[in-house]
Amino acid sequence: MTDKKLAWTTAALLTALIMNGAADAQERVIPPRVLPAPADVSPQIQGLAGLPVPENYNVLPKTAEEWKARQNASQASGTKTATDMAARLHVKVSAKTMGGVPVFDILPETVAPENRDRLLIHVHPGCYVLGGGPAATVEAILMASFGQFHVVSVDYRMPPAAYFPAALDDVVAVWKAALKTHKPSQMAVFGSSAGGALTLGMVLRARELKLPLPGAIGPGTPMAELTGVGDSFATNAMIDNVLVARDGICEPAARFYANGHDLKDPLLSPVYGNFKGFPPAILTTGTRDLLLSNTVRVHRKLREAGVDAQLQVFEAMSHAQYIRDDTAPETREVFQEIAAFFDRHLAR
Amino acid sequence: MTDKKLAWTTAALLTALIMNGAADAQERVIPPRVLPAPADVSPQIQGLAGLPVPENYNVLPKTAEEWKARQNASQASGTKTATDMAARLHVKVSAKTMGGVPVFDILPETVAPENRDRLLIHVHPGCYVLGGGPAATVEAILMASFGQFHVVSVDYRMPPAAYFPAALDDVVAVWKAALKTHKPSQMAVFGSSAGGALTLGMVLRARELKLPLPGAIGPGTPMAELTGVGDSFATNAMIDNVLVARDGICEPAARFYANGHDLKDPLLSPVYGNFKGFPPAILTTGTRDLLLSNTVRVHRKLREAGVDAQLQVFEAMSHAQYIRDDTAPETREVFQEIAAFFDRHLAR
Repeated sequence: MTDKKLAWTTAALLTALIMNGAADAQERVIPPRVLPAPADVSPQIQGLAGLPVPENYNVLPKTAEEWKARQNASQASGTKTATDMAARLHVKVSAKTMGGVPVFDILPETVAPENRDRLLIHVHPGCYVLGGGPAATVEAILMASFGQFHVVSVDYRMPPAAYFPAALDDVVAVWKAALKTHKPSQMAVFGSSAGGALTLGMVLRARELKLPLPGAIGPGTPMAELTGVGDSFATNAMIDNVLVARDGICEPAARFYANGHDLKDPLLSPVYGNFKGFPPAILTTGTRDLLLSNTVRVHRKLREAGVDAQLQVFEAMSHAQYIRDDTAPETREVFQEIAAFFDRHLAR
Repeated sequence: MTDKKLAWTTAALLTALIMNGAADAQERVIPPRVLPAPADVSPQIQGLAGLPVPENYNVLPKTAEEWKARQNASQASGTKTATDMAARLHVKVSAKTMGGVPVFDILPETVAPENRDRLLIHVHPGCYVLGGGPAATVEAILMASFGQFHVVSVDYRMPPAAYFPAALDDVVAVWKAALKTHKPSQMAVFGSSAGGALTLGMVLRARELKLPLPGAIGPGTPMAELTGVGDSFATNAMIDNVLVARDGICEPAARFYANGHDLKDPLLSPVYGNFKGFPPAILTTGTRDLLLSNTVRVHRKLREAGVDAQLQVFEAMSHAQYIRDDTAPETREVFQEIAAFFDRHLAR
């Protein structure tokens, strides 16, 4: 028996001894394991997969001021990421407003001829609290570049400046403004994580308001469930090295945004929404994603509602890791797939 | 701190102490966890998800005689499952031969009008060694009933009676025979696990032989990789309560079939095949599936080859658990989705 095998066996036996007594009926105890580097991915994704879980992943802000400090730090680092990425990918980013809401206008070097009259509305990730300002544009830059689309990224309001449903109201306001210059069938809405939930919530809200719906949507690994339901919250805990586990920053941040509002409201947990009549949707996740279950549950519920919904799952990727490295071939593939899906479903 | 939280913390700390020294660079140590009963699934799937890992999951046959005994036991229990299921679902099963190969002809109470001239070829699961004879028909019965299709299930040769490529040759022989009565565009080939790999292998082989290809395929959680590559072999080890882990019965059984042949041959590990020109494909897996990575890797490679390939991933399901309970609404959903996909792609 090798040292490693011995270590594994010892740890597994100890785990069984310690934990079996503490498990309830229908619960199962899963022993520790060593997670090797994934083999069938690019070196870039392998590098991301090998990153350790951040030591302070569950050290959370306690006051509005502490949240604000975390927000500022995330905006600063995200802004640098976005600026560098835009330069590398030759994408032009300019600030403007639409419907009174600050947005970033994002133009690739070349807009594909078939996309000339189309517009994508991007809703950024960041657990409803982080990643605003110019940092909002990272995913939009990737889509503009790899999909050759004109993209507008919504810099929606976040707490502590404003609480639920401020973010959703801002996305809807931008949608209304966009309807003045584009046919709804020429537009898609997309974004990951909180942006994926807001994409789904925006369609629910637009339907309530009897607004026309977009021609397609692309919710990436949507944060569609804030009440803890979802098997991958357990199976991928500590395996996902981005969100890490439910006691990481993302759910507390979302509750900070929800500000006491019922978390099961479909405008906060869209997995509980009625998806009847939704536009065609493409969903993206990874096998290590803490929100893998969120994503596949939304996919199933879209299909059950009769919606043309496509799912893509990337090997060994943690939560929204497809926006981390613009040089990874998988990143290009994710956005080219979404772009191709939009191309099939949007009017010219 | 609750007792459970204390137990978890103790086990996690011990694991870190014991295992960190044994991990190589780029490996990550994943602590033990308690897997709760999944919430957003039917009671049937919740029951299946709560089953403990079989204690003897890695106690393997050592001789051809021991494999034969395991084979006989699996055929006996599978035959009872199939007989009961056929009765409950009012499906008629009769034995015949096609192209010299024993098959089961499977007819539902009603063949849908649009399926009258269509035929599905089913390739059964069982790691190339198990689940033959009337047991082969379980998945075919589910498809016949929920999809209202005429299905033929191939009772291909298995070791110790015959080795690679006997199973594949039998599937191809049935395909050739079927081409005498049906247009290829009216037929689809489907099946799970080893049957999923054989479905992909059959298309590779048919292309080599310049035979016409089916109008669509449905490889369910294909055993498309026998060389150990795939992140979910690590992430879902001990979480999947069907295959359990790589040291369970399935890979040794496949090696028994391979009989020394190179496991990286695309006819054994079709993930390494060239998927250019493949028919439209629908792939099915679950979030707990040990072959989740196999399935999503095949899906990506099909998409990269330009194939119209759809992926469906079911919440909290272990390997091919969608053929375990015909009363689970998820089972019906899996096969109705595949049937709808076939309906969109097959000629009438």
